[in-house]
Amino acid sequence: MSSSSEKTLAEIFNSFDSEEALLPVIVQDHLSNEVLMLAYLNRRALEMSVATGRATYWSRSRNEIWVKGESSGNIQRVVEIAYDCDGDSFLYRVEQTGVACHTGERSCFFRIIHSGGLH
Amino acid sequence: MSSSSEKTLAEIFNSFDSEEALLPVIVQDHLSNEVLMLAYLNRRALEMSVATGRATYWSRSRNEIWVKGESSGNIQRVVEIAYDCDGDSFLYRVEQTGVACHTGERSCFFRIIHSGGLH
Repeated sequence: MSSSSEKTLAEIFNSFDSEEALLPVIVQDHLSNEVLMLAYLNRRALEMSVATGRATYWSRSRNEIWVKGESSGNIQRVVEIAYDCDGDSFLYRVEQTGVACHTGERSCFFRIIHSGGLH
Repeated sequence: MSSSSEKTLAEIFNSFDSEEALLPVIVQDHLSNEVLMLAYLNRRALEMSVATGRATYWSRSRNEIWVKGESSGNIQRVVEIAYDCDGDSFLYRVEQTGVACHTGERSCFFRIIHSGGLH
């Protein structure tokens, strides 16, 4: 996660095939590197995240733009945005206020289903 | 990422609506917490990952089960598997041999498209 991209933001926005297209975004604490959640972006949500510095997603359950923390106060300031080698997923490194998960846990990935011992 | 799940693995496998259903998995270095890649799982790939301890995915480009590193040698030992509050995405914490990205970069998220200064 050290190189700069040669693509312009406009080109990145065009990674979305249409206004409705969704791509996944991994959300990571910029200091601890803890993975906080996985969400989805459409082009507009990515544009808003860049323009405002506030992590903004597409809510698949509510079917609308979702400014993270708008109702809960648990906002995420976008520190850095990366995208992957295939250009079809994103990584937001954020400064998390409060917790990321609606359950009250810091990370949405608090349920461990398998760990080390089996192999 | 500290609690245990009360769900059984069999119940987790049933998070997949069908044999063909795909869910995203975030792949993270278990020591540094670096996010290495985002991939997709079907039920069989998750079962194989648990059974063998080798990270196994569904390749959407080749349309087949993909044992990571099988051809490149860049295998991933699965240290821990978590899933999120909604039960529709996974997190693999792995021990990465070599690099994760086919470009030769350690992480697939090596292209930074936006960083801090703008806000």
